[in-house]
Amino acid sequence: MNDIYKPQPISGFPEWLPEHRRIEQQWIDTIRAVFESYGFANIETPCVEELDVLLAKGETDKEIYTLHRLHDDDNDDSGDDEARLGLHFDVTVPFARYTAQHFNDLVFPFKRYQIQKVWRGERPQAGRFREFYQCDIDVIHQGSLPDQFESLMPIIAGKALQAIGIDGFELVISNRKILNGYLTALGIDDNQRTPVIRTLDKLDKIGTDGVTEILIHDVGLDKQMAKDCLNLSTITATTGDELADQVNDLDHHNSDMEDGVADVARVLDACRAAGIDHVMADLSIARGFDYYTGTVYEGRLMDDPDFGSIIAGGRYDNLAGQFINKQLPGVGISIGLSRLFSKWVADGKFDSPDGLPLRNCPTDVLVAWPNKNRTTVTKHTVDTLRDRGIRVEMSHRAGKLSKQLSYAQRKGIPYVWFPPFEDGNPHEVKSMATGDQVEANPNKWTPDN
Amino acid sequence: MNDIYKPQPISGFPEWLPEHRRIEQQWIDTIRAVFESYGFANIETPCVEELDVLLAKGETDKEIYTLHRLHDDDNDDSGDDEARLGLHFDVTVPFARYTAQHFNDLVFPFKRYQIQKVWRGERPQAGRFREFYQCDIDVIHQGSLPDQFESLMPIIAGKALQAIGIDGFELVISNRKILNGYLTALGIDDNQRTPVIRTLDKLDKIGTDGVTEILIHDVGLDKQMAKDCLNLSTITATTGDELADQVNDLDHHNSDMEDGVADVARVLDACRAAGIDHVMADLSIARGFDYYTGTVYEGRLMDDPDFGSIIAGGRYDNLAGQFINKQLPGVGISIGLSRLFSKWVADGKFDSPDGLPLRNCPTDVLVAWPNKNRTTVTKHTVDTLRDRGIRVEMSHRAGKLSKQLSYAQRKGIPYVWFPPFEDGNPHEVKSMATGDQVEANPNKWTPDN
Repeated sequence: MNDIYKPQPISGFPEWLPEHRRIEQQWIDTIRAVFESYGFANIETPCVEELDVLLAKGETDKEIYTLHRLHDDDNDDSGDDEARLGLHFDVTVPFARYTAQHFNDLVFPFKRYQIQKVWRGERPQAGRFREFYQCDIDVIHQGSLPDQFESLMPIIAGKALQAIGIDGFELVISNRKILNGYLTALGIDDNQRTPVIRTLDKLDKIGTDGVTEILIHDVGLDKQMAKDCLNLSTITATTGDELADQVNDLDHHNSDMEDGVADVARVLDACRAAGIDHVMADLSIARGFDYYTGTVYEGRLMDDPDFGSIIAGGRYDNLAGQFINKQLPGVGISIGLSRLFSKWVADGKFDSPDGLPLRNCPTDVLVAWPNKNRTTVTKHTVDTLRDRGIRVEMSHRAGKLSKQLSYAQRKGIPYVWFPPFEDGNPHEVKSMATGDQVEANPNKWTPDN
Repeated sequence: MNDIYKPQPISGFPEWLPEHRRIEQQWIDTIRAVFESYGFANIETPCVEELDVLLAKGETDKEIYTLHRLHDDDNDDSGDDEARLGLHFDVTVPFARYTAQHFNDLVFPFKRYQIQKVWRGERPQAGRFREFYQCDIDVIHQGSLPDQFESLMPIIAGKALQAIGIDGFELVISNRKILNGYLTALGIDDNQRTPVIRTLDKLDKIGTDGVTEILIHDVGLDKQMAKDCLNLSTITATTGDELADQVNDLDHHNSDMEDGVADVARVLDACRAAGIDHVMADLSIARGFDYYTGTVYEGRLMDDPDFGSIIAGGRYDNLAGQFINKQLPGVGISIGLSRLFSKWVADGKFDSPDGLPLRNCPTDVLVAWPNKNRTTVTKHTVDTLRDRGIRVEMSHRAGKLSKQLSYAQRKGIPYVWFPPFEDGNPHEVKSMATGDQVEANPNKWTPDN
């Protein structure tokens, strides 16, 4: 054998064993069904976009991977193509580009979901990946976007989490109109806005002292302005009235802020009415993307808030329309599937309580192959069961039933079928969970799983 | 508005409108169900692999995309990571790497399917993409691989095609043992083997004259050897006996060739027995990848053979095992989903016969919103239907029923629901296909679609 590279996991690029991938697939199927139950259509966009598209809303703080060909040839005039391509860092920007590009072929309001991998060239750390799944729903409309869609996004995301069995989450809502209005009322310079917003968004990570420090020394605000910023950002409220009272108590106001407060109040009410109970306003939430213009959302795990956001999204009025000079306001939300799923795996939530192997294949029943003289009846049994919609494997070697049972046990296959050893004898099927073995008819039997 | 980049399609990176993506998703769901009905477990590998893995079986003739970070920073010690990463060009090599890496956590024979995008930096042309879906099944076992798996691969692939409604395909089978044995018998140098095999694999594209020309002038064979090569490669047969007769008539022989002929005969018989009717031996099939060692498969459309292969695969004895110095022979097959699907779209096979819009959303029923006074009953109707598992949209604006019907018609939604305009009146539902409108109960009605 050659001295060959021994493969190692690539940091930040998760992959799962079959037993965990099986559950990840069930989560994706379930989330998809919830999205479809609200009439959202699926699309997929290519994994790459032109860099001009990825950077269309100015710089992003997400690290982009660009593509190059291994054997790039200067004489090949297609060689320039790849220098312009990058892997998408979210699916919101690709969706906005898609909507603009296919504008004439779409029906508006265009409601779509996308369940795809995205890539960010960040330094990997716990719960942060370089390649991960996001499950997104968005609506883009022409002209003006009906209010109810801003509430529908966190409701659907919440229903999707509930459907995969996650109830212990809290949604926090804010609105860029409040923050932007306030920064205007404070007289903050335009070129300081983005750094101020990004700094305030770190409040939960670095605290008020850390934020004050950056606002004064890095962004260049005076002490009072930094204090004023924090006076807004530290506001939290459970109801719209409570939020309005606190915002009214601030020293600076304008009508944009009032609009934003009303938007947040509406979303809080609608979420509660729809059975999403743990929802609150938190004006520290800003989100890292420049494209948000109104309501912004984040979702956190209640028993592990430091884990960070598991849901995120918001309203963007100028993302899709910019490409074709139209008004195409949108709103959307994203479930961080890989972040959540990897935590569930790491926390052992899928581990078998009895220590037995997890089911690591879709097989409902393994058909034992007694010996080579019984190959015809064995194959016929397999075909009969499979034609009835049952997922069947035939044992790969004849003989040694103990080996065949061990194979089924290690794969977590719930049933093993025994074709008759002699013509005229009955078929039997054994439940691996209970050990019970009973006569069964391949034309009638159905697995109970 | 800024002067901003107007997005254009990226050549070789297909994306579909929602109505076509919907069908693509149905194809994928159907293929997945067939793969699972044979007990194959799903895995996903990251889109990237270390270049050392991608190139582990020597040079590939597929163009690999490598990844770099847009803002690569020399001071960042993680900067080197990306230079080693490339997008996978198939999922066979990643599967072999996965099997070796997770060897201790897998149950053998390890049967898996993978439905993922792959990337090749080739010049785009009709039916050739740079990003495309492949649907793969493979089995890897320890030690020796039971014979029946070589037949099972084309049978499952054929059943999957039949399940998505494609019957007009032909499978062609060959075996590297025949070709390799023959090249040995001919006395072809080791360093000429790969170029000879790749040249012969082009027989259907460039014909015997083209192949002869390359074998003599580029590869350096003498005229007789080139002729001998073509004598083998032009053999086709519909049965094992017919194949054996023709191979026996050749001037050069060895036992490897006999083994290969027996393997091909066995696969032909098993396919026919399983209802895959159009299957033949064609010794011109070699496949471009160096890793194949035994049976190789290709599938073609019978009414458009020049379209090229829509199925491909084969047996590889040394791909997975090389990573960990074990015997891990495997066999697999891949359906070129994007190639097939894009042809079906281009050929208009999904076009609506009546010229009406194709269904471009999952919505079963649009619930009309008569006016703002009827919001509560409208929302209640929506919730009632959705809780019963029906996919429901609520109209996004109250009033103007003609607009709401037009929206349903343009989205291909099969039913429109009318909540009562006044309390006490009945609900009604309209079939958009027939125009029939009837009374209906939201607690009982079920869509017929």
